[in-house]
Amino acid sequence: MTQQYPSRLLEKAVQEFSRLPGIGRKTALRLVLHLLRQDTADVEQFAAAIATMKREVMFCRVCHNISDSEVCPICSDQRRDASTICVVESIQDVMAIENTQQYHGLYHVLGGIISPMDGIGPGDLQIASLTERVAAGGVKEVILALSPTMEGDTTNFYIFRKLADYDVRLSIIARGVAVGGELEYTDEVTLGRSILNRTPFEG
Amino acid sequence: MTQQYPSRLLEKAVQEFSRLPGIGRKTALRLVLHLLRQDTADVEQFAAAIATMKREVMFCRVCHNISDSEVCPICSDQRRDASTICVVESIQDVMAIENTQQYHGLYHVLGGIISPMDGIGPGDLQIASLTERVAAGGVKEVILALSPTMEGDTTNFYIFRKLADYDVRLSIIARGVAVGGELEYTDEVTLGRSILNRTPFEG
Repeated sequence: MTQQYPSRLLEKAVQEFSRLPGIGRKTALRLVLHLLRQDTADVEQFAAAIATMKREVMFCRVCHNISDSEVCPICSDQRRDASTICVVESIQDVMAIENTQQYHGLYHVLGGIISPMDGIGPGDLQIASLTERVAAGGVKEVILALSPTMEGDTTNFYIFRKLADYDVRLSIIARGVAVGGELEYTDEVTLGRSILNRTPFEG
Repeated sequence: MTQQYPSRLLEKAVQEFSRLPGIGRKTALRLVLHLLRQDTADVEQFAAAIATMKREVMFCRVCHNISDSEVCPICSDQRRDASTICVVESIQDVMAIENTQQYHGLYHVLGGIISPMDGIGPGDLQIASLTERVAAGGVKEVILALSPTMEGDTTNFYIFRKLADYDVRLSIIARGVAVGGELEYTDEVTLGRSILNRTPFEG
């Protein structure tokens, strides 16, 4: 049944909100009615923040991470190790790794992974520019930090082939039991791999 | 830990989104990155729809429902039964009842229910204007359609007292087992009431 809205303006706003991923009609209505109860200045600030972000945000021309400048703060940071590049799928992954504070090299954001089912081929991703960065020299190690899925593995292998001719070390992030997780609930593939790829115990 | 955003513009947009109810930081980031992948025109339309709605939408001066005009389409519809007023908590409730297509009278949107715990007293709600509508004459029945909770019952009783001096029939929506629900999973208060308030069987 089509919902009857008491106002076209309201309906338009609800429609726009419900086009966002994971936001249904009911949630959209709840959000819009919440905004309606806020101060006009706050709502205009909300709308302006989104429009400004879309209009002005850039993508780093080196690593393709989101940025306010042509080269992102990570790529332009002289203190970071420019000889190591960590290859990730998305901007969220960069943020997740940065949050660990365990990595001090640079990144390369592919913008997705190879997924024939979704019609995403190597040409849709930033793989050519990764090869260019490696070809330009100065890179000693490329760390593959893609999702441990079939698509991730396919992409890893594709990149491995592309970089095979260059003198660069290729590594992949460790796969094993999650820290703090219960062994008994770990799936058998992960558990099996964690035994095969065991590391020396440092007591 | 504070999240490091690669862009201030992105951070601002995420902040604004995460102020919405039920939207955490992670969801806000997901929504903002989704918008970033859309066409600029679409995103500006999204922002404009929200700002315009907030700026231009009105509240019906009769029933306080949301409206594009001073008097809402329901209140100004001559075909509707102006002698019946259904009292509801919110705009969503009006929409829910309209969707049933079982009600042809007018509404009165209180804008909440009496809830001392949340600091909401009768003075914060549109109860005085309800009394005025009844005092103006022509109203035969007031239907109370508030939530079947303690707060709803308190509000019902308050309205009952306010309207006691007027010649108007006061009724309340039926409470009982949900149509299509399983009897065995109905809570005992509802089930008990549904037996006490049983209605003649129409075979």
